[in-house]
Amino acid sequence: MPTLQELTEEQLIARLQQCQADYENYCRRGLKLDMSRGKPGPEQLDLTSDMLECVNVRSGFYAENGFDARNYGLLDGIPEAKTLFADLLGVPTDSVIIGGNSSLNMMFDYITQAYATGICGHEPWCRQGEIKFLCPVPGYDRHFAITERFGFTMLPIPMTENGPDMDLVETMVADPAVKGIWCVPMYSNPDGITYSDDTVRRFARLRPAADDFRIMWDNAYCIHHLSDTPDTLLNIHKEAKAANNEDIVITFASTSKVSFPGSGVAALAASPANITDIKKRMTIQTIGHDKLNMLRHVRFFRDAAGVREHMKLHAAILAPKFRIVLDTLQSRLGGTGIARWHSPNGGYFVSVNLLDGCAKETVRLLKEAGVIITGAGATYPYHNDPHDSNLRIAPSYPPLDELQTAMDLFCICAELAAIKKLLNA
Amino acid sequence: MPTLQELTEEQLIARLQQCQADYENYCRRGLKLDMSRGKPGPEQLDLTSDMLECVNVRSGFYAENGFDARNYGLLDGIPEAKTLFADLLGVPTDSVIIGGNSSLNMMFDYITQAYATGICGHEPWCRQGEIKFLCPVPGYDRHFAITERFGFTMLPIPMTENGPDMDLVETMVADPAVKGIWCVPMYSNPDGITYSDDTVRRFARLRPAADDFRIMWDNAYCIHHLSDTPDTLLNIHKEAKAANNEDIVITFASTSKVSFPGSGVAALAASPANITDIKKRMTIQTIGHDKLNMLRHVRFFRDAAGVREHMKLHAAILAPKFRIVLDTLQSRLGGTGIARWHSPNGGYFVSVNLLDGCAKETVRLLKEAGVIITGAGATYPYHNDPHDSNLRIAPSYPPLDELQTAMDLFCICAELAAIKKLLNA
Repeated sequence: MPTLQELTEEQLIARLQQCQADYENYCRRGLKLDMSRGKPGPEQLDLTSDMLECVNVRSGFYAENGFDARNYGLLDGIPEAKTLFADLLGVPTDSVIIGGNSSLNMMFDYITQAYATGICGHEPWCRQGEIKFLCPVPGYDRHFAITERFGFTMLPIPMTENGPDMDLVETMVADPAVKGIWCVPMYSNPDGITYSDDTVRRFARLRPAADDFRIMWDNAYCIHHLSDTPDTLLNIHKEAKAANNEDIVITFASTSKVSFPGSGVAALAASPANITDIKKRMTIQTIGHDKLNMLRHVRFFRDAAGVREHMKLHAAILAPKFRIVLDTLQSRLGGTGIARWHSPNGGYFVSVNLLDGCAKETVRLLKEAGVIITGAGATYPYHNDPHDSNLRIAPSYPPLDELQTAMDLFCICAELAAIKKLLNA
Repeated sequence: MPTLQELTEEQLIARLQQCQADYENYCRRGLKLDMSRGKPGPEQLDLTSDMLECVNVRSGFYAENGFDARNYGLLDGIPEAKTLFADLLGVPTDSVIIGGNSSLNMMFDYITQAYATGICGHEPWCRQGEIKFLCPVPGYDRHFAITERFGFTMLPIPMTENGPDMDLVETMVADPAVKGIWCVPMYSNPDGITYSDDTVRRFARLRPAADDFRIMWDNAYCIHHLSDTPDTLLNIHKEAKAANNEDIVITFASTSKVSFPGSGVAALAASPANITDIKKRMTIQTIGHDKLNMLRHVRFFRDAAGVREHMKLHAAILAPKFRIVLDTLQSRLGGTGIARWHSPNGGYFVSVNLLDGCAKETVRLLKEAGVIITGAGATYPYHNDPHDSNLRIAPSYPPLDELQTAMDLFCICAELAAIKKLLNA
């Protein structure tokens, strides 16, 4: 089959007419679908509903150290929750701080602390002039929103099949104004790429000019596999410690896509110096996060093995949705030369690179037909995708039939946009 | 009965010996009591235990607007939780933002926002040179810790029986570097004083030189009455709005001492401009706080009247504890001329002013005998009580018998310290 680029103008026009007719058929259906965020579907939320019975008068309110989890105290969380996350993340228990319901909030707080009062005794970033941050692209819009809020200059780093372009990262960090990098190292948002061992090792050994440079290691999808042969990620904390460089990385994670998106438990893992520094701020900020919710989680999952086992139930729900996305992309756009994508082994997204200049138009066409997806440009700092090419598909929330409809329409819109582009070129 | 000051040296020495003997008797008992924080006792926590049964598979997870409270979303909280707090605080529903489990965290976040990125379009405080903050004294140590962390100059404002010295406040705010004031307007921490109507009106009409001056109105004890004839507090939001000055105040509150200290629900109330400004930050910070916990609270309490009714159960537990504190102070120190205190109608503390220079020594003596109370100086910025006089007693946590023991000992220690002071004078 020839690619669209290989078609004659007449052939393209014929194809345009067919696409246009297909598109108008969809428009008449009055669709109303939202695929804009990586939001678990209701059937996933039902998987942990019984957790809400795990803490009550009958089962008691006491943590294993005898602490009444209802009352004030335990700034960094109940011990058994720390152990659970430590086992999941492969770090010692005292490297863990349990937070509230949102790892995003923990990241925001950390960047805010660095900016306002400084980290580990360093001058606050607000007193250091221009601050620069490395942003692997395509990436996660909420990360970029944090660094944009504080006015940092965001420098895009292209993603490769092995993670961010490490040659570029290593060059960039020679600038002392470069203070950090956003990473989703496993099943990256949106590409679904897991960083290679070599990439992780190079991160662990990174020697930035700035001593207060930090890798924001958002391990959001560390156990969110979709396949029986999942990716594996090297333990960056072990590697960094071995390289005598353990302060460089902070890991963030949560159960938002394990238990409840709005009522999960978040955590971070870091070196002793970073933990001490973060606790200094937390001591002023709060008397402690919700320990009853921590207890609920530990009693329901029991241990890290219990969590991993539970994730198979999520995979059973999510895998068919990813299958629809990938099969439809393949059957409708495979070989057309107008779209490239990675088939992920986990995570929450499929990232599609369309013909340059076609992302915004595809989103517009979808919207007009009643389907909302993540906006074009969202995966880039300042919402600026220089190629206007990348789109993020979030298959988790819609039911299978709606997802199939949305994906059929997505492919039609992508093709329509591409043909119009080619005809005008 | 003569005051200690009126006794002869011989009489003082005789009294010292008696006190010393009493004290040593207590020391031999090997006490281990902690009265350092305003922490509810276990019998108070049991009052809301059934709340944990209010959200589960049988009762469902949906807010009244049909939103699945388990999932992401609703940045400012579920509507029924906003209504509940709006009713409690006497403000419109859209003046309310629901937070996580800690109003302290909401205050910390607000000050951090003002410092790092500015409020309502004003220059961030970190770019404005010296920042000053008014601190009514005695006051709440955790407030002072926040403003100390950011390096603000804290200016003490003496408390009167009607609230902070408003003449001084009105003079101080002429300085544009003065950016705010900490207030606990009802049953103040630690004095238990409720601001008079005149004080509230003067706050509502305050015209500081700085447009980004904010009153941090920590209404922590707004419904925490101990008496059938509770104090009343004028609604500052109504007064400020009437004075065309509604942006000046942010109210903070929580259910930490209504439901669970570690698993309550916090909220703030503010003007439309402030709400918009705070939401701009929150949009970047989180996808939303724990909505299942909000739902639990609303289903258990039903409405503001339900909360107020519930508070009577707390009062029934707390009033006898306050009675022990006040009766013991009266019977042991009344008329001695070495201690003054206010008898509060609500809140969590009794504040005692000892003879100048006796607070630290009293705390030291108590500690040596095994009783921990809030440190001397804690109620002042920089832990600096210029008179070394004020101590905060927190009667809520210990059982009645332990509290009685601790109070007997407290009075002995206070008298011991005073006699030694008078003999050395």
